Amino acid sequence: MTAKVTPRSEDYSRWYTDVIQMAELADYAPVKGCMVIRPYGYALWENVKEGLDRRFRATGHVNAYFPLFIPLSFIQKEAEHVAGFSPELAIVTIGGGEELEEPLVVRPTSETIIGYMYSRWIRSYRDLPVLINQWANVVRWEKRTRPFLRTTEFLWQEGHTAHATAEEAQEETLRMLNVYTEFAVEDAAIPVIPGRKSESEKFAGAVTSYTIEAMMGDYRALQSGTSHFLGQNFARAFDIKFLDENNELQYAWTTSWGLSTRMVGGIVMVHGDDQGLVLPPKLAPIQVVIVPIWMEDAQRSRVLEAVYQVEGMLRDQVRVKVDAREEYSPGWKFNEWEMRGVPLRIEIGPKDVEREQAILARRDLPGREGKRTVPRSTLVGEVKETLSAIQSHLYQRALAFRQAHTYDPADYNEFKEAIPNGFAFSWWCGSAECEARIKEETKATIRCIPLEQEPGRGKCIYCGRDAQERAIFARAY
Amino acid sequence: MTAKVTPRSEDYSRWYTDVIQMAELADYAPVKGCMVIRPYGYALWENVKEGLDRRFRATGHVNAYFPLFIPLSFIQKEAEHVAGFSPELAIVTIGGGEELEEPLVVRPTSETIIGYMYSRWIRSYRDLPVLINQWANVVRWEKRTRPFLRTTEFLWQEGHTAHATAEEAQEETLRMLNVYTEFAVEDAAIPVIPGRKSESEKFAGAVTSYTIEAMMGDYRALQSGTSHFLGQNFARAFDIKFLDENNELQYAWTTSWGLSTRMVGGIVMVHGDDQGLVLPPKLAPIQVVIVPIWMEDAQRSRVLEAVYQVEGMLRDQVRVKVDAREEYSPGWKFNEWEMRGVPLRIEIGPKDVEREQAILARRDLPGREGKRTVPRSTLVGEVKETLSAIQSHLYQRALAFRQAHTYDPADYNEFKEAIPNGFAFSWWCGSAECEARIKEETKATIRCIPLEQEPGRGKCIYCGRDAQERAIFARAY
Repeated sequence: MTAKVTPRSEDYSRWYTDVIQMAELADYAPVKGCMVIRPYGYALWENVKEGLDRRFRATGHVNAYFPLFIPLSFIQKEAEHVAGFSPELAIVTIGGGEELEEPLVVRPTSETIIGYMYSRWIRSYRDLPVLINQWANVVRWEKRTRPFLRTTEFLWQEGHTAHATAEEAQEETLRMLNVYTEFAVEDAAIPVIPGRKSESEKFAGAVTSYTIEAMMGDYRALQSGTSHFLGQNFARAFDIKFLDENNELQYAWTTSWGLSTRMVGGIVMVHGDDQGLVLPPKLAPIQVVIVPIWMEDAQRSRVLEAVYQVEGMLRDQVRVKVDAREEYSPGWKFNEWEMRGVPLRIEIGPKDVEREQAILARRDLPGREGKRTVPRSTLVGEVKETLSAIQSHLYQRALAFRQAHTYDPADYNEFKEAIPNGFAFSWWCGSAECEARIKEETKATIRCIPLEQEPGRGKCIYCGRDAQERAIFARAY
Repeated sequence: MTAKVTPRSEDYSRWYTDVIQMAELADYAPVKGCMVIRPYGYALWENVKEGLDRRFRATGHVNAYFPLFIPLSFIQKEAEHVAGFSPELAIVTIGGGEELEEPLVVRPTSETIIGYMYSRWIRSYRDLPVLINQWANVVRWEKRTRPFLRTTEFLWQEGHTAHATAEEAQEETLRMLNVYTEFAVEDAAIPVIPGRKSESEKFAGAVTSYTIEAMMGDYRALQSGTSHFLGQNFARAFDIKFLDENNELQYAWTTSWGLSTRMVGGIVMVHGDDQGLVLPPKLAPIQVVIVPIWMEDAQRSRVLEAVYQVEGMLRDQVRVKVDAREEYSPGWKFNEWEMRGVPLRIEIGPKDVEREQAILARRDLPGREGKRTVPRSTLVGEVKETLSAIQSHLYQRALAFRQAHTYDPADYNEFKEAIPNGFAFSWWCGSAECEARIKEETKATIRCIPLEQEPGRGKCIYCGRDAQERAIFARAY
């Protein structure tokens, strides 16, 4: 029998690491806080990359590559930036057998070195906007790590743009937040709340940070992508100046935005269940697995013939895999591919061969409810429709779950009761003090101030003073 | 007027760095020996990646990702490996503000850490072969660097496979050498010589190293991809063992193979000319540039309309760009896109609009010879055929160039004369001493012992002793 993951209800954290390891998404590395992304997990990440990259190109961005190493002095040029990142740096002090004159930081993010290059490339308003994205690895020295969610090294994309006006940069910041939202909703089937970060939660060096926040299966929040309006902070620190149309020298306005392998952890935690992984069809490395079934050897060749015929029909349309291994029983394989989250299983046995049919079994619906017999003649269409039904069902299910666990507490007592069980969407006066107290008393932070909220006024959930906006409070990864 | 690159004939090395910078393939980084790969250069690299990745998948490989950091002790486990790589290491000694107990090496290559993981993943012959590739950045501390050809950090892919038998591993090594050859010839239009490295030139830790070697425009050789049969060296160092079919514990046999951003430098040096870059159509980020031409404002809108119509016809078929900038003249644009190596230019002026035609100008043929007027009705087909003609012309031209500069010197005096002007394909007795002397006296190294050579015997070009194989000797990058 195939090994089973710890049930979610029993121990969520253990369930998560079990799924990661048993579904072979990742493994622990021999370096503290690092992970190895195994082929199945990497294929999932490649699909994430493709879904994002396509959208970046459609919005006019191009890819480039900047150095891994950043002179330590660069990090120190933007005051808030250095304060935010200093405790997390990995530093190279030896190169080619010799002590380096200036230590090199392994990039934790690339605003500084990219800012330096932009200052050399940008001369005139004609050179703007610069719309560059980089796919790269970054390193942040983390005390407590967890595969995909927080690792010392992680993979991500970081977009860095420069503009002639504040308005354009602000527009870009929100455009990319929107790209992230669209990707999360459409491809990852994850409902997210786009919003603004509070001052204390924003990116070190940003004027305003925006985020998409998602609710995990244990009600905690996951910051799943961020987009920052950097104002002229990095332009001033790195001297990114251009001659405007009136021939006057101006500082540029810059943005940055990033989404990382963390998204893979989000996909696991939003959709997974007691059996293991449940992958949204659009991102699943294997969308359909075909399992042949036979009792006697005499049936074997007829069944396999039908299986490979069906594979041939599907191959150009979906990502399909045949599991014809002889050392495992069909039941074992069912469990295995369920645990690995394959959205749709096709079973073909001797009876199905005779009747020219196949059985479809959905990963997202338990037992009988998700099973259906389909004639071979309409199979391809049915498979595609079913995948699309699974995709939208996963999204709807996650949305309903988040809605069911998002509270509007009447007072701070209700707030404190709500926090362990979900998001609290509450009025906030805007003071960092209330925010800090809430964090201290409930471990909940302001995940974001949602961009979409009904205008109005209320009383701060903590201090009772006048409040103009509501914020999402939650415990977070 | 657009700035011009230094002519190749005048100063090859300067020509190379001019082309890299002016065509905006790369720029120097503020970190010694590092470069920034600019969008145009990165798009070229992405096309290289795609051409290789497709072939890796077709030969059964999957992608994964292993950590950037490797414990120093890992590098030291394989004796030859540590000797080869020690002088080139970048070492992290500080993480999160504290001195690390064990320093971490920034990977120069990943045999060690991947070997460690394979030892955990591989248990039985049923787990074999493991066929994994990684796209990653690596760091080797280099004294003398040159964009793309030799940089402290570079991008590459490294394949790492494990097999049950020596034969299978050997087969894999040559299969991947063949994939590299096919890619170089078909996509990069670069004729390469696949061959074996001599003992002194092989990879640190390999039993046998194979390489593809190409001739650059200055007759020097460029090692453009390597594939290593590692025997059981790394399996023993990292304890990669499996139970074979007889239930006996065996060490696995491993291989590794890599191709890097160096290939971009090779493409520049093989095809480029005095005007700048010449890109093979299969890899060119822009395959076709359309330049509108008008004298009077009245013609502008009609010309542009035709230009965008033609762009629309081509868009799904080729990578096409319209250069409708008004601040530059058509002549300036011609020079610009020639310098940037776009394989095919389409010119459309008022007369062409009237006659429903367009002018095609090939980058690889000078002036009139490469120009042709084509009716709009057959344009798409003509463009595609012309691109394919350019692709094969570039290959044939490079092959003819290499053949014209490959010598079969009769004696060592002729050999010494040949070396500054090309490759010498000479008998070699196999002794490291002759090899070292030749290197000392001529700066030529053994690039490879070509796999395809007529069997026979001869006299070593240096010592005159009996020799069973011929080697390619050349100065190299």
